[in-house]
Amino acid sequence: MKLAIGVDIGGTNASFGFVDRNGKILLKDYLVTTDFPDVKDFVKAMAKRVSELRPPNSELIGTGIGAPNGNYFHGTVENAPNLKWKGIVPLAKLFSEALNIPAVLTNDANAATLGEMFFGGAKGMKDFIFITLGTGLGSGIVANGQLIYGHDGFAGELGHTIIIQHGRQCGCGRKGCLEQYCSATGIVKTYFEILRSEHPDLMKTIDTDKIDARYIFDRALNGDEDAFYAFNYTGELLGFALANSVAHTSPETIFLFGGLSQAGELLFNPTILSFEKNLLHNYKGKVKILPSSLPENDAAILGAASLVWNEIE
Amino acid sequence: MKLAIGVDIGGTNASFGFVDRNGKILLKDYLVTTDFPDVKDFVKAMAKRVSELRPPNSELIGTGIGAPNGNYFHGTVENAPNLKWKGIVPLAKLFSEALNIPAVLTNDANAATLGEMFFGGAKGMKDFIFITLGTGLGSGIVANGQLIYGHDGFAGELGHTIIIQHGRQCGCGRKGCLEQYCSATGIVKTYFEILRSEHPDLMKTIDTDKIDARYIFDRALNGDEDAFYAFNYTGELLGFALANSVAHTSPETIFLFGGLSQAGELLFNPTILSFEKNLLHNYKGKVKILPSSLPENDAAILGAASLVWNEIE
Repeated sequence: MKLAIGVDIGGTNASFGFVDRNGKILLKDYLVTTDFPDVKDFVKAMAKRVSELRPPNSELIGTGIGAPNGNYFHGTVENAPNLKWKGIVPLAKLFSEALNIPAVLTNDANAATLGEMFFGGAKGMKDFIFITLGTGLGSGIVANGQLIYGHDGFAGELGHTIIIQHGRQCGCGRKGCLEQYCSATGIVKTYFEILRSEHPDLMKTIDTDKIDARYIFDRALNGDEDAFYAFNYTGELLGFALANSVAHTSPETIFLFGGLSQAGELLFNPTILSFEKNLLHNYKGKVKILPSSLPENDAAILGAASLVWNEIE
Repeated sequence: MKLAIGVDIGGTNASFGFVDRNGKILLKDYLVTTDFPDVKDFVKAMAKRVSELRPPNSELIGTGIGAPNGNYFHGTVENAPNLKWKGIVPLAKLFSEALNIPAVLTNDANAATLGEMFFGGAKGMKDFIFITLGTGLGSGIVANGQLIYGHDGFAGELGHTIIIQHGRQCGCGRKGCLEQYCSATGIVKTYFEILRSEHPDLMKTIDTDKIDARYIFDRALNGDEDAFYAFNYTGELLGFALANSVAHTSPETIFLFGGLSQAGELLFNPTILSFEKNLLHNYKGKVKILPSSLPENDAAILGAASLVWNEIE
């Protein structure tokens, strides 16, 4: 039985699993990333766990790694702000040496994009865009059946397209990036802006730390107009940005993944409305916006494992 | 000697040439498109000219056609506003039947993009963007060494990305499209806006029909601040839009082609300044903006011919 190892490197945990060609995870586990200030100790511990847990009669064909700031071409993690491993870390090389099988690495959004293509709703598609709406906005673009890495391995940074000039300050140092509006963090900022404008007294007394995207979602479901409008505004900007992306690679479908996408119609309705309104006539009515069909909890491992299958096929 | 036929369909003329693998045009000629209200007569006349002019001892390996609203997948010209041939015209099929060799078709900007890859400055590049600054703004995107056609054959419509919401009215029916600002037509609109704001009396007496991009270029060279500022503003928006495009496909170079690009530093300086300012840090200093090295007059024929070489290789 041929299996790929999928490894998802997060700032807190690094989960991994043994995945077959059909996207079945036979077994999964995790290490606490922060327990290993030295990346070599981390890889050593991971190799030990892999050999302990390896399913009997399995042939491990490779390790796929999804990591923040992962560079596919060099197999490196480059200056990831949320990891303790500083500088340029040759993680793929370390893994392939420790496990004696090929290792391939890319950033987490690209990995999830391949996951959608191999195991999710994009099976058989040659042109699609995958968007993860989490703390930030990550993305991957598939064109002509191939994930686009770009010249330097950093293609598909749609979260950092500027949609409002001189807009909200972004962590990247510029202003008006898409992810400052269309992400779990972005919708909270939008909600605060609405409260500040509509209910300035309330803003003075409210415990802002308790407000997250989930809270706004619950409020919107319970008839809170401000919360409902926050989703509307988020969808309006997302639809606008995605219409511009369609003019680049003309995908057949755009998949939305991640916590915020689980708001369902509250997010999809205004997104699709704005998307169709802003699309060039050539594309109108032709491009679907769908929820990802990857399971939220396993998407990262599946995506990382699909990197291996992608290299082989 | 193997030769490809390159055919460039324009609203007024259809030029064609016999092109070898090195991009040498052995002979070229043209027909007047408007002489042929019926496309079948056009193809018949073209086939006759081709057999008359065909260089001795040559083997014609295929016809490449660049046409407005050309659809690569179907080999059709679809509802081209500037052509007399209405509806969906199966031009590639008509050509292959008339000449008994394969015919391949795409839109003119895509053809020129392949021309840059085969015969111009993009030789050996796997990731680049090609921009034509003419009456409108056309574009083609190459990623992973392949021209991106997208799901429906209409990828790479960067001229119709919206860069200013509720901005200038575009012929496509929407507002704020890039080509309303960054094109020969766009810079004239900008210049008029400046004159209207700065010299309202002058605007009442000036013969606006005489003002084109070339006029503004000459004025700028002669120290006209308004004309200079019109180029600055054009470059500022172009640089901004291209920075967002880089976040999609991460090219190594962006080529500018067409009349307006021949303004040289007047356009390139503000474009590059704005581009670098608006780039995500990952990309800063890594992506070149260069003039196309295709000869202006032969680019369309070379581009169309390169379609044939691209299919073969």
